[in-house]
Amino acid sequence: MVCALVSSDGKIIARNVFRDHRDLSADEIIAEVARHVNSLILETGVSTQDILGIGVGTCGHVHHADGMVITNSQFSDFRNYPLAEKLGELLKLPVVVDNDANAQAYAEYKFGSAQGFRNASFVTVSTGVGAGFVIDGKLFRGIGGTAGEIGHTIINPFSTVRCGCGNYGCLMAHTSGQTLPQIVRQKLLQPGTDTTIDFKNMEDYEINGELIGKGFEEGDPLCTEIVMENADYLGLGLYNLFQVIDPEVIVIGGGLTNWGDRYLDRIRKTFYRTAGRMLSHPLEIRVAALKENAAVIGAAALLLEPR
Amino acid sequence: MVCALVSSDGKIIARNVFRDHRDLSADEIIAEVARHVNSLILETGVSTQDILGIGVGTCGHVHHADGMVITNSQFSDFRNYPLAEKLGELLKLPVVVDNDANAQAYAEYKFGSAQGFRNASFVTVSTGVGAGFVIDGKLFRGIGGTAGEIGHTIINPFSTVRCGCGNYGCLMAHTSGQTLPQIVRQKLLQPGTDTTIDFKNMEDYEINGELIGKGFEEGDPLCTEIVMENADYLGLGLYNLFQVIDPEVIVIGGGLTNWGDRYLDRIRKTFYRTAGRMLSHPLEIRVAALKENAAVIGAAALLLEPR
Repeated sequence: MVCALVSSDGKIIARNVFRDHRDLSADEIIAEVARHVNSLILETGVSTQDILGIGVGTCGHVHHADGMVITNSQFSDFRNYPLAEKLGELLKLPVVVDNDANAQAYAEYKFGSAQGFRNASFVTVSTGVGAGFVIDGKLFRGIGGTAGEIGHTIINPFSTVRCGCGNYGCLMAHTSGQTLPQIVRQKLLQPGTDTTIDFKNMEDYEINGELIGKGFEEGDPLCTEIVMENADYLGLGLYNLFQVIDPEVIVIGGGLTNWGDRYLDRIRKTFYRTAGRMLSHPLEIRVAALKENAAVIGAAALLLEPR
Repeated sequence: MVCALVSSDGKIIARNVFRDHRDLSADEIIAEVARHVNSLILETGVSTQDILGIGVGTCGHVHHADGMVITNSQFSDFRNYPLAEKLGELLKLPVVVDNDANAQAYAEYKFGSAQGFRNASFVTVSTGVGAGFVIDGKLFRGIGGTAGEIGHTIINPFSTVRCGCGNYGCLMAHTSGQTLPQIVRQKLLQPGTDTTIDFKNMEDYEINGELIGKGFEEGDPLCTEIVMENADYLGLGLYNLFQVIDPEVIVIGGGLTNWGDRYLDRIRKTFYRTAGRMLSHPLEIRVAALKENAAVIGAAALLLEPR
């Protein structure tokens, strides 16, 4: 977990990184977070009167309006947990909670690649795939707070690749890090699959975006096939997003963007070929500007959102 | 074309139906529309001071903000045509222009099946497939005015069915009336296809939603297969819409809803099975309340939208 003091122009003044305590209860984790916030305040000597509040970005399903965490795949004790209320009690400061894709979307809008646009979509391609939409300068969250879950939209109903949600062929099944082992194993069963990597003797957790990216860079045929297919699916996913939301700019972030220019160019090529003349305004696909600190700056940026 | 005088509670006071003059120029068509509006005003004796304005709903791609029609597949002369400005000059009344899916969405929100909801999505399944989104009581149009074009989202990248947009496997290719002849012809080539209808000796224009619906009602195996597949694709399309927009209610309208309860139940079944526990709030799929007059009431309702 990362805890940082962030200025209102998106600069990190100080930060603490600490181990995720997945075996602690939700209350214990929140107490730990509060301790780290307090020590940052003490360290930097900032006055609490100058602090707008605490922004929290978390994975999972969040009710932004009341700061409730509904479900969280990484910390199972956060189930219908009033995170904003509990942390607010400990710190005596306003607390705003949202999911990390929304937080990152807002950070890119305020300080990153979507600066200057009023309608921006942010898509993260990482272990999972999610999106955040800034519409007229505000995050759009839908009714249940789950708007932007493009990772779970079905892109191929006849797919053999299964997502953690239980469905086959959703965008996350074809464009995230999470299903790479599954895709590798399925492709190895197909005749003629050619690779220089000894996938067969690897555990699933070893088959990740970094490994596939390295193989891709070195010209491994299977890794190249996987990255290109992944890019094609993501290109279609971004095209679908364009048709539904029609943003001014799409920003993509997350670990898989490290696959580099050939991956990114293929995404763009599929996007523009599919959109063709239906694209009535120039729509750029940009890479996120805020890298490793995107999540924590995004969480802080939530406090700048107009109410 | 239909021209109507509509009260602010969505009731039709008087209406004129007149032939679509596809061979006339845009200016001539607009002059014709103005004549029909004026004769309605004279007929009903309403004072122009009591008229909020003129609402126009049209197919095609529209810039709502300035009332420009960018493209229109039915009237090719409407290309970058300042419809609101031209009609406003002739009638000396405010003119609001939008695409028909948006107009119908707003009508269902004000007077129909989405009354009482602040976030409602409307999907029309007819010759084409389109959507309109009401978000916080206002239509959401995106930047280019084309938000809601879910008909062109890709739902099956390996599909053999081609949409008018040029792409294969978009939602419109699998759930609209327009591609029914194509689907029938492809299925007839598959071994074992069983039907009581003499499709082979029919022209494409004869193979429409009504014919397929009649066959479905009478138990024709091919028609039943087509309607059920269509419903499955639409169920997935509505599920994708839920993941991206997360509305409170989805209203479906358009001619294909006449395929009836078995079609509608199948759509709902596919939707709820795919959404499963990801659906964090009750989300009903309703049928549009405003039938044949939806488009014209919707166009008028556009004048009631908060600016």
